Amino acid sequence: MRREITGFSNPTVKYLRSLRDKKHRKREGVFLAEGLRLLTDARECGHVPQMLVMAEARDPHPLLDALEADVAAAGGEVIETSADILSKITGKDNPQAVAGVFAEFDTSLAALDRGTATIWLVAQALRDPGNLGTMLRTGDAIGAGGLILIDDCADPFSVEAVRASMGAVFTQAIAQARWEEFLPWLRSGPGQLVAASLRDAVPYRGAPYAAPCFVLVGNESRGLPEDYELACDLRVTMPMKGRADSLNAAVAAAVLGYEVLASLEG
Amino acid sequence: MRREITGFSNPTVKYLRSLRDKKHRKREGVFLAEGLRLLTDARECGHVPQMLVMAEARDPHPLLDALEADVAAAGGEVIETSADILSKITGKDNPQAVAGVFAEFDTSLAALDRGTATIWLVAQALRDPGNLGTMLRTGDAIGAGGLILIDDCADPFSVEAVRASMGAVFTQAIAQARWEEFLPWLRSGPGQLVAASLRDAVPYRGAPYAAPCFVLVGNESRGLPEDYELACDLRVTMPMKGRADSLNAAVAAAVLGYEVLASLEG
Repeated sequence: MRREITGFSNPTVKYLRSLRDKKHRKREGVFLAEGLRLLTDARECGHVPQMLVMAEARDPHPLLDALEADVAAAGGEVIETSADILSKITGKDNPQAVAGVFAEFDTSLAALDRGTATIWLVAQALRDPGNLGTMLRTGDAIGAGGLILIDDCADPFSVEAVRASMGAVFTQAIAQARWEEFLPWLRSGPGQLVAASLRDAVPYRGAPYAAPCFVLVGNESRGLPEDYELACDLRVTMPMKGRADSLNAAVAAAVLGYEVLASLEG
Repeated sequence: MRREITGFSNPTVKYLRSLRDKKHRKREGVFLAEGLRLLTDARECGHVPQMLVMAEARDPHPLLDALEADVAAAGGEVIETSADILSKITGKDNPQAVAGVFAEFDTSLAALDRGTATIWLVAQALRDPGNLGTMLRTGDAIGAGGLILIDDCADPFSVEAVRASMGAVFTQAIAQARWEEFLPWLRSGPGQLVAASLRDAVPYRGAPYAAPCFVLVGNESRGLPEDYELACDLRVTMPMKGRADSLNAAVAAAVLGYEVLASLEG
């Protein structure tokens, strides 16, 4: 059964809009993702939305039918509404024709199984949701197991992060922890912690990477705290030929991540 | 002489705010850049702002004094205003204490000298100003000569692109051209055109890169048009281990750019 919503002031519209706000997401334990491709990725990874919102004016698509059937079978709700209301919900001028509400995942370190992958990305105090989503997307591409968020990072379940992840929010494991929790967890098993660094570092190419390799990048403007870097097993540096002394955080993670991939596979 | 501005409705404030709009930037032939570090990079690269706007409540700094002296010596205007008004001008909640208005550069292909660098970044229909700025920043890091923007790209002089470039908008050459202009220009001199591609491509590691190497990435959602790819001298592909079939455009340019750098220097 589809329910039709035509009014901006409908309580469900208000609920959906409120999910752009971290406080409301945390209270409800859910997040919003948009787009047929992303929702199909989610579905194929076993994540079925609690609520599916579709634009009335949409092109028919077998994947959308499959999605709707899965949501209905799981007891979820299917809503039809106008493109204008969808735009208001997602905060995007040209909204996708479909969006879904998903339960947030367990992001405790205890839920991570480091044995599932040879590369893990780790970000400390990453503030930009676009960078966070891009790191998830890169993690998917290099076959990383997931992204570990240390200290106060942007919310991986924000609309912006989910959008930038291009679906990788559903394929990558995500954990959130303070440094004081992360370090003992890391040292409780195998794992090489590698920092992108300018201090006392070796060239990133040909450095002695070892699996499982945890690639750590720091905050966008301050980089990593010195004591965090000193706790790493390896500090590597990328060439900086120009005036700048650092890369965008998501770029640094990608350049280093691809190098680690080549090294471990080579 | 400093001029003090206290009102939001002051014509200069309106003029400065209007520069967040591309239409107004083009009409005036100027753009806005914020932050002492960025303005100092600009100054050291020979770009002095026509107008310097400083927050009244700012920490004194010798680099700010040097900047103010240069602006005054060049006949420019120095303005003091409140943090609130600066915030309104730059559209940022926590504005930097200083911003400058700069004349736009010549972005014709004719102004590029390909002999000045062994790597050039090229983006086609790049729509996200953050990606554009990040590519400029990466170009600076890998010692690229500049960024060539093909077809309809985001404006490199938008506040978002300038901010994401972290000053590289002043250190990298920038050109804008249609594909129909770019290709004859490229072929009029030495240059290898390399596409990040999924079609008929060789692995990006160990590919036969040659200087001057022009690294081409396509639009964020559509990638490169097929005929553009076919016009390239080399098509390379990066491993995609997960579900996604592409990287963020700025990430792809960086991973490939660093590989080209290592290849040409190795």
